[in-house]
Amino acid sequence: MSSVDRQLEELEAEIKSEIPSDISVSAVKYEGPELVVYTRDPKKFAQQGDLIRRLASKLRKRITVRPDPDVLSPPESAREQIMEVIPEDAGVTDLDFHADTGEVVIEAAKPGMVIGRHGSTLREITKKVGWTPEVVRTPPIESSTVSNVRNFLKQERDERRQILERVGRQIHREEMSNDEYVRITTLGCCREVGRAAFVLSTPETRILIDCGDKPGAEDEVPYLQVPEALGAGATNIDAVVLTHAHLDHSALLPLIFKYGYDGPIYTTEPTRDLMGLLTLDYLDVAAKEGRAPPYESEMVREAIKHTIPLEYGDVTDIAPDVKLTFHNAGHILGSAVSHFHIGDGLYNVAFSGDIHYKDTRLFNGAVNDFPRVETLVLESTYGGRNDYQTDQEDSERKLIEVINEAHDQDGKVLIPAFAVGRSQEIMLVLEEAMRKGKIPSMPVHLDGMIWEATAIHSTYPEYLRDDLRDRIFHEDENPFLAEEFNHIDGGEEERQEVADGGPCIILSTSGMVEGGPIMSWLRHVGSQEDSKMVFVGYQAQGTLGRRIQNGWDEIPINDRGGNGGRSNTLKLKMDIETVDGFSGHADRQGLEDFVRTMNPRPEKVLCVHGDESSVQDLSSALYHEFNMRTFAPKNLETFRFK
Amino acid sequence: MSSVDRQLEELEAEIKSEIPSDISVSAVKYEGPELVVYTRDPKKFAQQGDLIRRLASKLRKRITVRPDPDVLSPPESAREQIMEVIPEDAGVTDLDFHADTGEVVIEAAKPGMVIGRHGSTLREITKKVGWTPEVVRTPPIESSTVSNVRNFLKQERDERRQILERVGRQIHREEMSNDEYVRITTLGCCREVGRAAFVLSTPETRILIDCGDKPGAEDEVPYLQVPEALGAGATNIDAVVLTHAHLDHSALLPLIFKYGYDGPIYTTEPTRDLMGLLTLDYLDVAAKEGRAPPYESEMVREAIKHTIPLEYGDVTDIAPDVKLTFHNAGHILGSAVSHFHIGDGLYNVAFSGDIHYKDTRLFNGAVNDFPRVETLVLESTYGGRNDYQTDQEDSERKLIEVINEAHDQDGKVLIPAFAVGRSQEIMLVLEEAMRKGKIPSMPVHLDGMIWEATAIHSTYPEYLRDDLRDRIFHEDENPFLAEEFNHIDGGEEERQEVADGGPCIILSTSGMVEGGPIMSWLRHVGSQEDSKMVFVGYQAQGTLGRRIQNGWDEIPINDRGGNGGRSNTLKLKMDIETVDGFSGHADRQGLEDFVRTMNPRPEKVLCVHGDESSVQDLSSALYHEFNMRTFAPKNLETFRFK
Ligand SMILES: [Zn+2]
Ligand SMILES: [Zn+2]
Ligand SMILES: [Zn+2]
Ligand SMILES: [Zn+2]
Ligand SMILES: [Zn+2]
Repeated sequence: MSSVDRQLEELEAEIKSEIPSDISVSAVKYEGPELVVYTRDPKKFAQQGDLIRRLASKLRKRITVRPDPDVLSPPESAREQIMEVIPEDAGVTDLDFHADTGEVVIEAAKPGMVIGRHGSTLREITKKVGWTPEVVRTPPIESSTVSNVRNFLKQERDERRQILERVGRQIHREEMSNDEYVRITTLGCCREVGRAAFVLSTPETRILIDCGDKPGAEDEVPYLQVPEALGAGATNIDAVVLTHAHLDHSALLPLIFKYGYDGPIYTTEPTRDLMGLLTLDYLDVAAKEGRAPPYESEMVREAIKHTIPLEYGDVTDIAPDVKLTFHNAGHILGSAVSHFHIGDGLYNVAFSGDIHYKDTRLFNGAVNDFPRVETLVLESTYGGRNDYQTDQEDSERKLIEVINEAHDQDGKVLIPAFAVGRSQEIMLVLEEAMRKGKIPSMPVHLDGMIWEATAIHSTYPEYLRDDLRDRIFHEDENPFLAEEFNHIDGGEEERQEVADGGPCIILSTSGMVEGGPIMSWLRHVGSQEDSKMVFVGYQAQGTLGRRIQNGWDEIPINDRGGNGGRSNTLKLKMDIETVDGFSGHADRQGLEDFVRTMNPRPEKVLCVHGDESSVQDLSSALYHEFNMRTFAPKNLETFRFK
Repeated sequence: MSSVDRQLEELEAEIKSEIPSDISVSAVKYEGPELVVYTRDPKKFAQQGDLIRRLASKLRKRITVRPDPDVLSPPESAREQIMEVIPEDAGVTDLDFHADTGEVVIEAAKPGMVIGRHGSTLREITKKVGWTPEVVRTPPIESSTVSNVRNFLKQERDERRQILERVGRQIHREEMSNDEYVRITTLGCCREVGRAAFVLSTPETRILIDCGDKPGAEDEVPYLQVPEALGAGATNIDAVVLTHAHLDHSALLPLIFKYGYDGPIYTTEPTRDLMGLLTLDYLDVAAKEGRAPPYESEMVREAIKHTIPLEYGDVTDIAPDVKLTFHNAGHILGSAVSHFHIGDGLYNVAFSGDIHYKDTRLFNGAVNDFPRVETLVLESTYGGRNDYQTDQEDSERKLIEVINEAHDQDGKVLIPAFAVGRSQEIMLVLEEAMRKGKIPSMPVHLDGMIWEATAIHSTYPEYLRDDLRDRIFHEDENPFLAEEFNHIDGGEEERQEVADGGPCIILSTSGMVEGGPIMSWLRHVGSQEDSKMVFVGYQAQGTLGRRIQNGWDEIPINDRGGNGGRSNTLKLKMDIETVDGFSGHADRQGLEDFVRTMNPRPEKVLCVHGDESSVQDLSSALYHEFNMRTFAPKNLETFRFK
């Protein structure tokens, strides 16, 4: 008998000894990190109040109880009974029965009302029909991404369950090694911004953390081919952790499935959906620019199929010797500071991913409170000695000023922005400014994937800042639904109309002016002297955005409008403004504050995800201020911590 | 056609255009790093004076010319003709004809006389008989190791040639990667003395440097299992380089053949033979102590079969992007500072191996003059702030004093010593002291493998210090043949006789009192109050030698004398002396001098092969004195240099 089977047998015995004797246990299995208990008495189980919670804390496992398939009431009658239990206000939009697992997926506008106080409504459902309810939110703004992902996962349910069972057995395998070490290998993102990729390794386990591209340098990809990463075979990686969906962290994640990886990706649910959106767009852009895409869209689906979503705060076994916990990073929707607890108290490493330390309109500030942490891998985008940014309040004032100026001279405001994160933050600023009369009400055109990204934001309000969540949740005052917002879905024609029209604001991707509809907008309004182009986010070295910011005003425009891809030079006549307080990244002060107030203070900090001078500056500052060991690694180095 | 075949075709054409038209070229092949040119006109080739040298410098390859097998004169007549050409004084002891390659191996007491001025005699031989002569020295003291190795290689000639052809094609394969980096991964020997093992890697190539054990800690072996080393499969290592034969550098090298490695080992010829001797003994000791040996003796033979010997100063292609050059390290016979030139001027790394900076009686001091070198990996055995050692002159005076004292009180002197290196140095001191009357003439008993190691030393006088070489070479004054030296080959009985006899000196392995005949000697003479035990070499942490040095006088002795392995405690009554100037390692001053006078001065130094405080002290001293970047790596780290 394998050690996993022996373990499961012992767990089954322990469970049986803990529960009333009239409740049967027909099987105990691992599915991913969860222990699934099958019973012929799901209703009795549900009647036992917090029995599941007690079991979970006793066994130190995440536990799910499922009815044995043959005790389920038939879906037709179950549907009726369920709808009777759930309050009408919950706004149920779909019920989906899966006889194989006894689960019923309930999609509702107000999931909280389906769950009930402490899960009482869910238990009520199980008591009545035997089925195990699982709740998802009906997107308040229709999101094709969310519905595509959900439909896809529904369709791949069988394979997914197989994957989860396999992963579950992997996670709970017996430890083989009697050696001890904890290492981090840098595969990218060191002394540069882009191609984030790290391997965290122990004698037992290797975990890939992020796998992004490098904006402005397509050929500089993470060093996946070295033996520490995939060079020794894709199966040498046990798990992948994705901190957030930005392409500099996610773009090349689907690629590893092409290379034969077949294990789990741990990330948050919104990151999974955003990753789907952004990587598919990434392939699209490559195709449009005539580049060979590094992988097919099939690989994005593989990535989604292999994703095991975790919520902030869930402590999850992802390997025999590694527990992972995500914490809000304040950077973009679903972004996570990833905390790894290794061995039995052996060592703790936190990867910041990208963080914003202060609260923003969209998110609470990054969490920096951990049970233990010895080493921090810290982003350093604004780690440079002069990278102190304007307070967001001042920035908002400045943005409002710039908009009013443009409006006064009948001009337009063109804002290149990442679809995900900064766009929504700016939308919230604009919505409030118009609502409070600080700027005239005018159309705000959203181009590229901004609309879709916004829809995903409103699908996962739990990941937004408390008061914003409440506005979307309880008060039906969803600011993203303000009437000024217009989704550009009419292509070049609609853009031409906008360009010919009056004052307005245009938010368009890509955020670093590296392609996407912003290139169209430059052609349409770039020569309008009374208009303004406003940078609100970080512009990486080598990107066109950075060059424009630095004063370049002759920019090559590949006119896709029909003259055979002829390359023109466009004379940029708009005013160029930079309003820098909106970054999704902590500024130098924020990074220092994150470390200063971190609890506990780490012993070592690896400064990554910043230009060479930024990581050096931050590394040296943290060393001098806090007397900790700090490093500015290069790519392809390995640090040992234990 | 493969790129190697295309390359060989081009080389063949170039050779043909360079040589007179009446000399045929029937084939051109790689064998290991050499380019072998087969001709039907070996005699004409030989008549062309320095044609081969000119070709070599033109093609930038090491070139060997071989006769086509069917133009060779028959061995019987060739033998006669060869013996006519070679002066009788050369002392030829064997001729061995290999029809497959047209080589004749000539073993002679004086190889120089077989070679002749600038190789004139060798050319004369080829002119007469067509065969290509290869010369080896007849060991002046019979060495079973040397004759075993030579016989083994003779017997395995066919397979060896296949290996060399395969390796040759590997070395000259086309470069695949357009990336550039140079990395060093530490697998052992960091913040400790022992288990030396490093991987030098580029996008193209991975080279394992050394693979030793850790004295006093059998279970601490190099981290071969990580993916950077053999974890990704043994075939991921392209080449192995062995700096010298000490077990802390060589003991686990045969193991990698058990793990499937099938590539070359580059080292010097004496290191190959010493490695054979020491690793076979290592297996022996393990067996005697009841430990499971990590590999069978068959694997030692594999290692020898895969060894490609290089001489000091030979610049050798060992990979498409790596050239290796060995330089005298002054530490033990055949020990080499290993210089790697990577890419076309991209980067240069020197691994010191173990070094002695000053001249000793046995060796010239370590070479520290290189065309280029950016990074130095430096041993730090005596890198501690107080590790300044007595000058050897003073040490010799002290040793002589100690010996005279013991002699005066009718006692014996017991010196634990490494078989290889320090024993021969001490032998030279004793021989001179007796010859010059500084100590009375008395027997010097050599136990363990010291005699055999000495025989190997006198087989390779080219690797010894100039004047010593000359004494062995030209004047027939081989000091190792002094009559006082007695080879203990009569086992316990002979030892008992010696113990019962008068004043004498006993040199015995193991050098750190970790087993071997020194344990017998402790039993035989350990309780003789008038005798002295003298430590002349480094005693690693955890070894019995270190403990005795620190004053322990109750030592566990496993009495192998026949009472069933009963464990006794022996009360040590000998005086314990340490005479520390004989170390084979540079002391702190020597290490600093090595770096100070190094030409060119490296930019970075990795301090390894030393206790934690030694590497830290040395690293910090070199940083402050020379303003270079210095590191005291941990095991399992990776440093990137380019
Ligand atoms: Zn980001
Ligand atoms: Zn990022
Ligand atoms: Zn799969
Ligand atoms: Zn050594
Ligand atoms: Zn050594």
